[in-house]
Amino acid sequence: MNIKNMVENKAKAAKAASWELYKLSTARKNSLLFGLAAELKANTGNILKANALDMASGRKAGLSASLLDRLLLNEKRIDLMAAGLKDIIKLKDPVGTVFGQERRPNGLKVARMRVPLGAIGIIYEARPNVTIDAAALCLKSGNAVLLRGGSEALNSNRALVKILKQAVKKEGLPLSCVEFIDTVKRSAVEVLLKQDKYLDVIIPRGSQAMIKFIMENSSVPVIAHGEGNCHVYVGPAADLKMAAEIVFNAKTSRPSVCNAMEKLLVDKRVAKKFLPVILDRLAAAGVEIRADKLTKRIFKNAKTATEADWYKEYHDLVIGVKIVGSLAEAIKHINAYGSHHSDAIVSSDKAACARFLREVDSAAVFTNTSTRFNDGFELGLGAEIGISTQKLHARGPMGLTELTSSKFIVTGKGQVRK
Amino acid sequence: MNIKNMVENKAKAAKAASWELYKLSTARKNSLLFGLAAELKANTGNILKANALDMASGRKAGLSASLLDRLLLNEKRIDLMAAGLKDIIKLKDPVGTVFGQERRPNGLKVARMRVPLGAIGIIYEARPNVTIDAAALCLKSGNAVLLRGGSEALNSNRALVKILKQAVKKEGLPLSCVEFIDTVKRSAVEVLLKQDKYLDVIIPRGSQAMIKFIMENSSVPVIAHGEGNCHVYVGPAADLKMAAEIVFNAKTSRPSVCNAMEKLLVDKRVAKKFLPVILDRLAAAGVEIRADKLTKRIFKNAKTATEADWYKEYHDLVIGVKIVGSLAEAIKHINAYGSHHSDAIVSSDKAACARFLREVDSAAVFTNTSTRFNDGFELGLGAEIGISTQKLHARGPMGLTELTSSKFIVTGKGQVRK
Repeated sequence: MNIKNMVENKAKAAKAASWELYKLSTARKNSLLFGLAAELKANTGNILKANALDMASGRKAGLSASLLDRLLLNEKRIDLMAAGLKDIIKLKDPVGTVFGQERRPNGLKVARMRVPLGAIGIIYEARPNVTIDAAALCLKSGNAVLLRGGSEALNSNRALVKILKQAVKKEGLPLSCVEFIDTVKRSAVEVLLKQDKYLDVIIPRGSQAMIKFIMENSSVPVIAHGEGNCHVYVGPAADLKMAAEIVFNAKTSRPSVCNAMEKLLVDKRVAKKFLPVILDRLAAAGVEIRADKLTKRIFKNAKTATEADWYKEYHDLVIGVKIVGSLAEAIKHINAYGSHHSDAIVSSDKAACARFLREVDSAAVFTNTSTRFNDGFELGLGAEIGISTQKLHARGPMGLTELTSSKFIVTGKGQVRK
Repeated sequence: MNIKNMVENKAKAAKAASWELYKLSTARKNSLLFGLAAELKANTGNILKANALDMASGRKAGLSASLLDRLLLNEKRIDLMAAGLKDIIKLKDPVGTVFGQERRPNGLKVARMRVPLGAIGIIYEARPNVTIDAAALCLKSGNAVLLRGGSEALNSNRALVKILKQAVKKEGLPLSCVEFIDTVKRSAVEVLLKQDKYLDVIIPRGSQAMIKFIMENSSVPVIAHGEGNCHVYVGPAADLKMAAEIVFNAKTSRPSVCNAMEKLLVDKRVAKKFLPVILDRLAAAGVEIRADKLTKRIFKNAKTATEADWYKEYHDLVIGVKIVGSLAEAIKHINAYGSHHSDAIVSSDKAACARFLREVDSAAVFTNTSTRFNDGFELGLGAEIGISTQKLHARGPMGLTELTSSKFIVTGKGQVRK
């Protein structure tokens, strides 16, 4: 069978199977995940054998140490995957929840009910644990899932999908509740992106280049994760010791992730006091400082930031620093140059904090804490299939509820419309 | 200036102006709409003069009577537009609403806040009243709006946009809060659909052909209204008198609209009793009956329904009729052949109704009432910018809340992430 037919058939099969999941009780969805955890443990040997093949090819192909680390599975990581399933079992099932009840003057009872989306495509890169995590979140929210993993992890993913299908079968559900694109050919992705007849949404997890390609080529709605050009603004009323801890944490605790701070904005009234201390500390931790003119007067060792710097996500131990004259200027700068991901103010002025929360238009806005907390677990969703930086449907970390839609349910006693 | 630059500049200007609306208080948004209602009344003469030009060209171009009726403005219709503004003023402003509050174990206070989407593109056809209605809903929800109306209504829309801009100016807001594509050239739409840098969403209102073109060509997210192949299922426990009233209302009260019934499914246990009565009544009202084999045995005058009929939205006095053996068969048929718009069950069996509500996957599902109630006013939204048949972001009638996004707001006391 050619790739086009293969992908189409799998998308079609996943959509057909999704109707069984649509009406499945929470108890049975949990039973499925419980069975999956058992299968994972029972098949650890097979999974590690398959993963060893991927690791060997990866080494041969010269993958970087960090990529190899993402690819690696071991007993501990498989235990973590199983533990993650137990956490998902504990989460409240959003499907069937009724909200927004209202009675109309004509007696109609109107409400909305949460329902599964249907069939979800997940396109991801090297991490094989995504195969289990993403599938489990889709299944718990009543959705069928069509997986397309990175080519480096093909053997590991095959072994994991086999286990997923075993669990689905033992629960008495159609095997196509989980489908997997079992080829490394890129053309499979292109076909996948055109399955709007069968797929209700595609969620990409991976590099910005990969996400951009998907957004530009998909006829299926996409929920995507854009760049994280995140700011911390230190206001004139900031507790400067707190500000230093937050800035240091936001920049250095994990500089390669999307919620790491990339830009520091400091009010001119505290710049002379605050900047030498924090910039020395950042520089000592290996952070390259790129600064505007005013900052350079205070901290001579900084490089000069260009206009392009203010738009940039460094993903690295680099920071852009700018002195601003007011809260309004800080907000304007963040909304104009930022990527609307995660932005923070440090200030003990409550009115300034409230204004910052209201006027900064980002997926997550913080007062007196680190941008690094923009994460589904940290924000209390209990799980996360990704972080959306879009405005439609889901914005910020996406949990189970974000994998559902809703419908109006209307109960009458024979009313007709005039 | 060429069309490409003109459209790009307007989209860019609307996005820039949207930041003023983003932070505008409810009182000032209402003041803007109040001023707009006054401008409408004060400029009725100019609007009618402009509309007369469109009506004259329309008649000359041989537009159909129904199209000319949609195009027509008169004093009464302008009064209705102004009254509609007063209704929107009364609606609760969703922007700034905080929901989902939670305190995390580390003391962080997490919540979500409703925020405007930003800049919204509205592409619509002949009705000039959409210019005011849609702009008012966008403005009340804190969004800038870029309007592209049908070419037939160009003069009317110009006059209405002039009034919109006057009201915006009098409120001291940037004129670009409302922008209008002032050309009849189709290429302007193609450029508009590529303004993903500036527009946050496009909402099309018009024919299915127009919506399909927009969905296939837009790089801006689209919230669209698909077909309405709506069903009424009459179960074995139905009150047949009630069922007849509902079926007759759903089919004949306005057969050209999207929430009109197109298919009647009747349980075999009541078919012999119910079908002759209702089909005679429908036929007497001029409805063409297309039926499956079993129905034809009972009602000989019916035409034979083809497989294609079950997928079809007639938009006319035509109905497809099928006898089904069970509730499960009815649900399966509706989910497989329907368009997931508006579907109803008539039954006095509460368990059957609950199952129908849960398992039928449509934007609005009804028990013991007419599908014709799928409408923003009827379902209590107070206003409606359209009906979404998509699953992401908004499903069913869209009111003010559906014109907003949300963001996480997180309040700390110096917490950093380990």
